[in-house]
Amino acid sequence: MILTVTLNAALDVTYRVPALVPGATHRVTEVAERAGGKGVNVARVLRTLGDPVIATGLAGGAGGARIRSLLADEGVREAFVPIAAESRRTVVVAEPDAATGLWEPGPIVTPNEWTAFLSRFADLVRGAEVVALSGSLPPGVPVDAYCALIEAARGAGAWTVLDSSGDALRHGLSASPDLVKPNAEELAGLVGHALPRPAAALDALRALAARTVVASFGPEGLLALTKQGSWHAFLPHPVAGNPTGAGDACVAALAHGMIHPRPWPERLADAVALSAAAVRAPVAGSLDLSDYRRLRRAVIVKEA
Amino acid sequence: MILTVTLNAALDVTYRVPALVPGATHRVTEVAERAGGKGVNVARVLRTLGDPVIATGLAGGAGGARIRSLLADEGVREAFVPIAAESRRTVVVAEPDAATGLWEPGPIVTPNEWTAFLSRFADLVRGAEVVALSGSLPPGVPVDAYCALIEAARGAGAWTVLDSSGDALRHGLSASPDLVKPNAEELAGLVGHALPRPAAALDALRALAARTVVASFGPEGLLALTKQGSWHAFLPHPVAGNPTGAGDACVAALAHGMIHPRPWPERLADAVALSAAAVRAPVAGSLDLSDYRRLRRAVIVKEA
Repeated sequence: MILTVTLNAALDVTYRVPALVPGATHRVTEVAERAGGKGVNVARVLRTLGDPVIATGLAGGAGGARIRSLLADEGVREAFVPIAAESRRTVVVAEPDAATGLWEPGPIVTPNEWTAFLSRFADLVRGAEVVALSGSLPPGVPVDAYCALIEAARGAGAWTVLDSSGDALRHGLSASPDLVKPNAEELAGLVGHALPRPAAALDALRALAARTVVASFGPEGLLALTKQGSWHAFLPHPVAGNPTGAGDACVAALAHGMIHPRPWPERLADAVALSAAAVRAPVAGSLDLSDYRRLRRAVIVKEA
Repeated sequence: MILTVTLNAALDVTYRVPALVPGATHRVTEVAERAGGKGVNVARVLRTLGDPVIATGLAGGAGGARIRSLLADEGVREAFVPIAAESRRTVVVAEPDAATGLWEPGPIVTPNEWTAFLSRFADLVRGAEVVALSGSLPPGVPVDAYCALIEAARGAGAWTVLDSSGDALRHGLSASPDLVKPNAEELAGLVGHALPRPAAALDALRALAARTVVASFGPEGLLALTKQGSWHAFLPHPVAGNPTGAGDACVAALAHGMIHPRPWPERLADAVALSAAAVRAPVAGSLDLSDYRRLRRAVIVKEA
């Protein structure tokens, strides 16, 4: 089983309006709700791939209850730990040609709630082969949360994949996860200078304390540093669409590769193709497997 | 006791952002939630005036539960009837100098839920001296809902005040409520031509099937047609502020006047001053009684 962790889960709400006019009042013609947060999207893609997956994390208040019931409706098994404060909403105001985001701040987590999560995590991780840790930390969760979870997972014999940013990523790396997946911006934050393209980034990947580093560069593909070698995997022609959720599809592919081990070039080609299929899909965490299979044949993997 | 009815209750959410930029993603710095809907605001003002009040209506899902718990936190007694669908949210994106509204559509009410509400209303109205019916009807509620509720209230010996718009108002008027409070736009919709100012509007008021008509004209005040006479009540200098909720404060004052009967000019002066105090208050349904008392002394009431 793959366990995904989403400590700052969200209720993703989309408001459709003909045009967003600041200062005006809009009657929203359509409201769509969806469970959100990076780890939730990872779980959704893994379920599409047919892997056994459980989504855990923190979910609070009425919004948290809604997140859990929406996941159940989708058939994603969940083991979220309840907290008192309301899980955040991410509101997207969708016009025909533009999308405006309004991100609520995360809920405040109490020390007792964090202790309860650690206890639940210790139970869940005993059944996990891989733990994927994704996204930001809500206020109140210790900044070294991912460090504690990676150590607990390692103690239980599970592989770990980390996809976060800022201090949460930095502290998580101090526990040496099995795989870390920064994007170009996160990588720049870690090494202290911009690395917008994969060409010159291999040295930066060597500086990170993880067994495997897979860095994502948007349409320029993935740069991977592994114990078996290093590769650049990419599509010859970038796909058009919504990049939100592409990184989560990449993490799902890499976690999938840990329980279905094959040579790295194949795993990376899967990750590029799944990410691109997610870009083509209209909402984060959903993708069309036939898109994936078609794109998979076009991926180029070169030694780096 | 005054019973307020809010069939399309809302969870009013305010997002504070430094500036709203269409197409961009915004981290919301502050989220404020408040129970909303016109009848809820009426109940809040009546509680401020010290009148015994119960807020009823339809409240659904997690949002409805939140509306009820927020009312309880404020000390407003509520007897909302639960429905399965989610009560709507009204999101206001507040910049320092502007406010952008996003109004979700109302929840769909089933025939069984409407029947359950009618039964609960019949119980509640037995203890009510006045019933104030405010706002729009959510989908699924019959368009003649206010007609049925006014007839049930009259059968139980309660006075009725109606403040709605469009077809809901038109059908409600067919039951001849004791008082109707259209604004200039609603009045224009009823009589078929624009009446932006009180000066020439008295004939239009005579055309409406209600014992008393009090029409509101924003900063130009109230025009009232009663069995005892007709008056124009206004402030010599309009106040600056947020007009949302001013009409609800007016309805609260008129309902208050029904259980504390005094001559109409005094009731109308109260209604003008409470509306103006609501304009000066930062959020709908709240007001400062010392503002009200100060403004009350300035109100001018003339026979019309």
